[in-house]
This record gives sequence, structure tokens and C-alpha cells, in this order.
Amino acid sequence: MLTDNLRIDANRLWDSIMEMAKIAPGVAGGSNRQTLTDGDKEGRELFQTWCKDAGLSVGVDRMGSMFATREGEDSDALPVYVGSHLDTQPTGGKFDGVLGVLAGLEIVRTLNDLGVKTKHPIVVTNWTNEEGTRFAPAMLASGVFAGIHDEEWAYERVDNDGKTFGNELKRIGWQGDEATGGRKMHAFFELHIEQGPILEAEGKDIGVVTHGQGLSWTEVTITGKDSHTGSTPMPMRRNAGLGMARILDFVNTMAFDHAPHAVGAAGHIEVYPNSRNVIPGRVVFTVDLRSPNLDILTEMGDRLRHEGRKICDSLDLEVTFEKVGGFDPVEFDTECVTAVREAAEKLGYSHRDLISGAGHDACWINRVAPTAMVMCPCVDGLSHNEAEDISLDWAKAGTDVLFHAVVERAEIVS
Amino acid sequence: MLTDNLRIDANRLWDSIMEMAKIAPGVAGGSNRQTLTDGDKEGRELFQTWCKDAGLSVGVDRMGSMFATREGEDSDALPVYVGSHLDTQPTGGKFDGVLGVLAGLEIVRTLNDLGVKTKHPIVVTNWTNEEGTRFAPAMLASGVFAGIHDEEWAYERVDNDGKTFGNELKRIGWQGDEATGGRKMHAFFELHIEQGPILEAEGKDIGVVTHGQGLSWTEVTITGKDSHTGSTPMPMRRNAGLGMARILDFVNTMAFDHAPHAVGAAGHIEVYPNSRNVIPGRVVFTVDLRSPNLDILTEMGDRLRHEGRKICDSLDLEVTFEKVGGFDPVEFDTECVTAVREAAEKLGYSHRDLISGAGHDACWINRVAPTAMVMCPCVDGLSHNEAEDISLDWAKAGTDVLFHAVVERAEIVS
Repeated sequence: MLTDNLRIDANRLWDSIMEMAKIAPGVAGGSNRQTLTDGDKEGRELFQTWCKDAGLSVGVDRMGSMFATREGEDSDALPVYVGSHLDTQPTGGKFDGVLGVLAGLEIVRTLNDLGVKTKHPIVVTNWTNEEGTRFAPAMLASGVFAGIHDEEWAYERVDNDGKTFGNELKRIGWQGDEATGGRKMHAFFELHIEQGPILEAEGKDIGVVTHGQGLSWTEVTITGKDSHTGSTPMPMRRNAGLGMARILDFVNTMAFDHAPHAVGAAGHIEVYPNSRNVIPGRVVFTVDLRSPNLDILTEMGDRLRHEGRKICDSLDLEVTFEKVGGFDPVEFDTECVTAVREAAEKLGYSHRDLISGAGHDACWINRVAPTAMVMCPCVDGLSHNEAEDISLDWAKAGTDVLFHAVVERAEIVS
Repeated sequence: MLTDNLRIDANRLWDSIMEMAKIAPGVAGGSNRQTLTDGDKEGRELFQTWCKDAGLSVGVDRMGSMFATREGEDSDALPVYVGSHLDTQPTGGKFDGVLGVLAGLEIVRTLNDLGVKTKHPIVVTNWTNEEGTRFAPAMLASGVFAGIHDEEWAYERVDNDGKTFGNELKRIGWQGDEATGGRKMHAFFELHIEQGPILEAEGKDIGVVTHGQGLSWTEVTITGKDSHTGSTPMPMRRNAGLGMARILDFVNTMAFDHAPHAVGAAGHIEVYPNSRNVIPGRVVFTVDLRSPNLDILTEMGDRLRHEGRKICDSLDLEVTFEKVGGFDPVEFDTECVTAVREAAEKLGYSHRDLISGAGHDACWINRVAPTAMVMCPCVDGLSHNEAEDISLDWAKAGTDVLFHAVVERAEIVS
């Protein structure tokens, strides 16, 4: 059967990833192509050029997400979407997101090479602002697409320099005319690097993602009193930094209480006025809690507020908690997950079911379309780090499994 | 006796302080006149104008410290120096440092008004970069003056933007020709706000500073691994933020172990890459430890390194410690301290002996000249804060006590 012999061109895929990585490189071999920067603009232009070269028509919605369509044979059939995101962390790697978008492009290029037609159109997708580092929350555009966030609210998100998402999207010239969320999908597939150490440690080629961990981001603001580090007696201090320290330790303990799946930490911390001889009068930090179990996620959020308040009360500090991001645990579509598992099986790749620890655009799109994810290993589980790396074999295995899952849904007609 | 009736003009002093505060104001009513900024330049120019108007000749040394001399009657008599600093914290108040410099000027203005001559010259002094926020360490210019630091090393200090102290000093045009530390002093007096809550709490007008706490600044750098907050299992994390949290809590406990005089905290904390969904791979923070007892100060520094290393080892983190500032506890000159105490007594002000919790230029100058300090209360012990405040009565009492101590040393001749 023709289908069984389909394979992508791994070298072409790899070359495209490396070409994309030349745009807005990081300082240590990775990428710093944060959303709506000039680098993001340039990356989008390169991707658009490649899409047009592959004969695709590129639509852009009002959130800047890009949809590159390869027509299907049945004009009534809904498209199969495949993609991820081209934006990166400030100290990001070359593969997080990029692999998923360019794997979609490689599938289309391979179908073109072979002259294979599908019943359903195939749409290669680049979601805007998956990372959420510059404009919180993460997965912003796919969230608006899925009706989770309001578009106007998304436009008002502000970066550290006071610039808004809406203005920056216009500035780089990538606000499209298409209504966000107007597209209906037959299915959505996303290939992504694992961003964790499990597949590599167990020697598996493929992760079949059955669930996504729920996430809760809480911004904690502790207010004490700026005062001199030398002449303020210890019992009279209102040290916001000390309150933060105790909450961070508590978050760590709480995550271990719900081993092995729950996790918790703070990656973002701002201290004011941040001077060596001033006791911090204010600290703002974001606690990231995750669990695949909604009850546990909710309980951890409640305990953070309860214990955080107790800690701050005992130190004569004021504290506020603001939820700045989150989503419930995700259960992906059974048929799409099965398509991924059977593709891995058919191609002879070792595989295991996975819970995704990270949030992905697929987690939001799962709300409005049958969705599944494919994961491939990454070296040392490292991601959100310039040293993030994968092998060409892993990229090939992941993309071929994605390919066969997509094609199974899109239905080959010739 | 003429001397007993001498009093400064508190309103004139207050007006000058308020005039100086108009230069580089903060965002919340205080001052942001950090060292070697354009604001510092403007503040120096205003002070120089006032000094010239008072008939003083202004010398400037190679570290930018300013010395405004009122001649004495005896050409062989060493001058009595009086002053403090005009630079402020980024969120500084209007009085920290400024009071001490302008009180010196007010003394001279009063002597001029009354036509009083002294045997010893009186030199009003503005020391460069007392705060050390922009260029660590604190009390940089007085430290070079006293032979603690090398001048070339001082020039090479770098701010957060990569600018050097030496270049910035030249840029604002305040690098003088005078060799730093060339001046010999008969005595040095510094009036300063307490920057602590003791005088106000006890209802005392004057602090007679007998000792200065020793200080030790240790920059701690913890290195873990940047990794994804969602998909990195808890046991495999190398979270530099967690190491910092535990060290901050330990520092707090250790300071309480040496109550009531020892203190410890971290005011300066930087987290890398500081993204909400990246576990911090690196954290840099400065631990400020102080004690009036050298043995305790040394012991606390040793324990910080020992326990800090243990904490980091247990979390699979690397840690380095660098001493970035410090001075030994100070015992001020008995005769000068007595002059302060007797001035307070003579003028009928309530007073108590104090240990200065903060570092001051006087702490370095005490190494090379007979030195003492006068302190006045500040509201709520607040300093290094834009809300820092004192009353006009407190300023008057402190300046009159300073005046009488200075005059006692300078010897009135007519």
C-alpha cells in the first residue's frame, strides 16, 4: 500500500530548522526569537516564503496566527491542521515549537514531491505567542482561537517595556483580517519535543500524548517595607524577600507531596528596589503549579494562598495573589491519539503514552477540535534553554509518525 | 560665653535641603540622585555655588570628593572636617547624607553671619559615592581617601550598564586634580539621620555614636540548570531559586542567633533567565551581614559559606561566594565622641550612645583621623526609602550639636 511507504525527507526538515535558527539567534547557540519582535517578523516571512514555494495559500487571523493551506480533493471536507509555534523563549532552543511547524511543512513538501492528494485539505499552522514570556499568558493566540480568551483582552497584554500585544502585532505587520477562531477543523495534530527527560531515559522514540497537565500561574505580590539593611533591628523588619523565600520552599514541598506528577516552582522573580543595602519592600513572583489531576491542581492553588498568607502574616507582610494564567488538565481525542499510536506501531518505533508536563497550543485547540500530540525525545530533557537539542533520527521518527497520523485523518485519494 | 550662645539657622538649613531635593527627585517624594549621574552633577554644582557664596574655596580630589574650606587663623593648624555625601539611593530620601553636608555648610554660614573666627580651618566635605548602589562597594571615595581601596581599582568599578566609575566621573566633569587622601585632618565629624528606629522610639534628640557595626557583603552565585517548569520531574530539577530561598531563610535565622546587634538580609537578587516557565538556572544575590563584634561578623560569614554550600550540595547546585564589600567594626575617637556628648549635654538635648548599624564615610575616615558621628532621629526609622523623613526640630538639634562639637575642636579665637 502506498501509504505505508510514505516517509518525510529528514535532511530537508533539518536544514529548514537550522535555517530558521539563523534568525534572532541567542547568545549561546539557541534562539531568542520572542513573539512580535523583529526576529519573529523575519521568521514569519521566511516561513511564508517556504509555504508559497510549496504552493500553499497563507491566511492570517487577527491574532497573527498563520494558516498555510494545501487544498484537498473534497471541497466539503474540513481540513486537518498540523503545526505548533515559531516564537521562542528569551534563552530558547532551536526546536521548541519550530520542529512542529516545520514538520507540518515537511509533510506537505513530501506529499507534493510524491504527487499524493488527500480528501481533506492540510493546513500548516504557526500559532502566535505560545511562549507567553513577553506577553503572559502562554498559548495566547490558540487560547483566543479556542474561545478561552477575549481578543480585545489579548491585545491589551503588556510587556515589561509597557508595549501592548496589539500594538506590537500591528508594528510587525502581522495582524491579519481573518476572524480568530472562525476555522473549523477535522483534526489538529502537534509534534513537539518532550521538554522532559522521560523518553530519552527509557530509550523510547515516540511519546503518544494522552493527557496534558493542568497549569496554574499565580502572581504573588508581597509588600513589606523598604528599610536599611544595617540599622533596622531584626525584629522590626518587614522583609518581603524573606516571605518569598519561605513561600518558594513551601511550593517545593507541596509539589513533592503530590509526587510523581505534580510540579511547582517560580521562574519569574522581581525584587524592589533591588539594592544591596535596602531590605526588599516588595517582591513579585509567579508560582507555576501543574498536575494532570484537576482536584490536586485546585488543592495546590488553595494551599499556596492559605500557607502563603500564613507565612506573610507571621512576618508582618501583606500579600496578594492573582491568577495570571492557567488551564485545566486535558484529555486528548481518543481517535486522534489512536491514530498517533498506530502510526508509531506501524512504522516500528518504540513508544509509550505520556502526560505532557508543558502547556501547548494543542491543549487549547483540543477544546474545539479533535486533537492529539506526538512527542520526540530531547537531550537531557533540556528545553527553554539554548542548549536544547535533539537528534536528526528523533526528528525523523517524530515527523514520520506525525505524517502518518495526519494522512490517516486527511485520507489519501490518489 | 559667646560659644554657648551659638545656634544655627534651622530654617535656612531646611530651605537648602529642600532646594537640593528639587534636583533629580524620585517618583514618590524622595530623591534619585545616584552617584555620577547628571543629577549628581547638578547637585554638586549647586553645592559649589553655595560654598562660593559663603566665601569658601572648593578643592576636588581625583575621586571627585569636594572640600570647601573656610580659612582658620592659624596657618599651621590642621583643619576640622565636617560633612557627609550628596548622592542618594535609587529610591532614596531627602536627608540621608544631604543633611550632613548641608549642616556643615550651615555651620559655616552661621560663623560668617556672626563674624566668628576659628584657629583651625573648617572644611565642609561631600564624599563621592557613599551609597554604593550604582558602583559597589559603598563609601568608595572615603575608602580610597583612607587607603582602604586602590584608586585605579575604584575607577574600574562597573555599573549595571557596563559603565565604569572612572569614565562616569570624567563624564560629569568632577574628577579633580588633588591627590586622594593627601589631606591631613585635625578631626572629622559627620551628622547623619539614624536610619533606624531607636532614637524616635526612646524619645531621644541625639545619638552619640560610639561604634560602627562591621559589615560584610557576600555575592552568592548559584548555578543549576534552566529547564521547563512543567515537564521536568521534581527529583530531576536543579532549581537555583530554591537554593537561594533556603539560604535567605538561613541568613535570617543566623542573624537572630546573634541578637540583638547582628543583622542579615539580601536586598539585591537577580534571577536568570527570569521567565515564568523556566526553572531558574542561575541566581545571583548579595548577603549583607553586620555586627559590632568582629568575631561574630567573621563567624557569620564563615557559616554563610558553610551552610550555603551544604544547602546547594543537597539540591545538586553549584555555588560560589565572592566578598564584594566590607569593613571591620569601628570604635570612634574618644575625644571626638566626648565632644559630641558634651555638646548635647550643654545644649540640653536628651541623648544616648548608639552603635551605627549602617556604614558611613566616617567609618573609613576614622582610620586616618580622629572621628565621631552625631545622629538625629528619623520618622519610623525609615531610610533608603522615598518616604524617609525628619522634623525641622530634629535637624536643628543635630546640627547644633554638630556645630558645638566642631567649634570645640576648631577653637574660636574671636
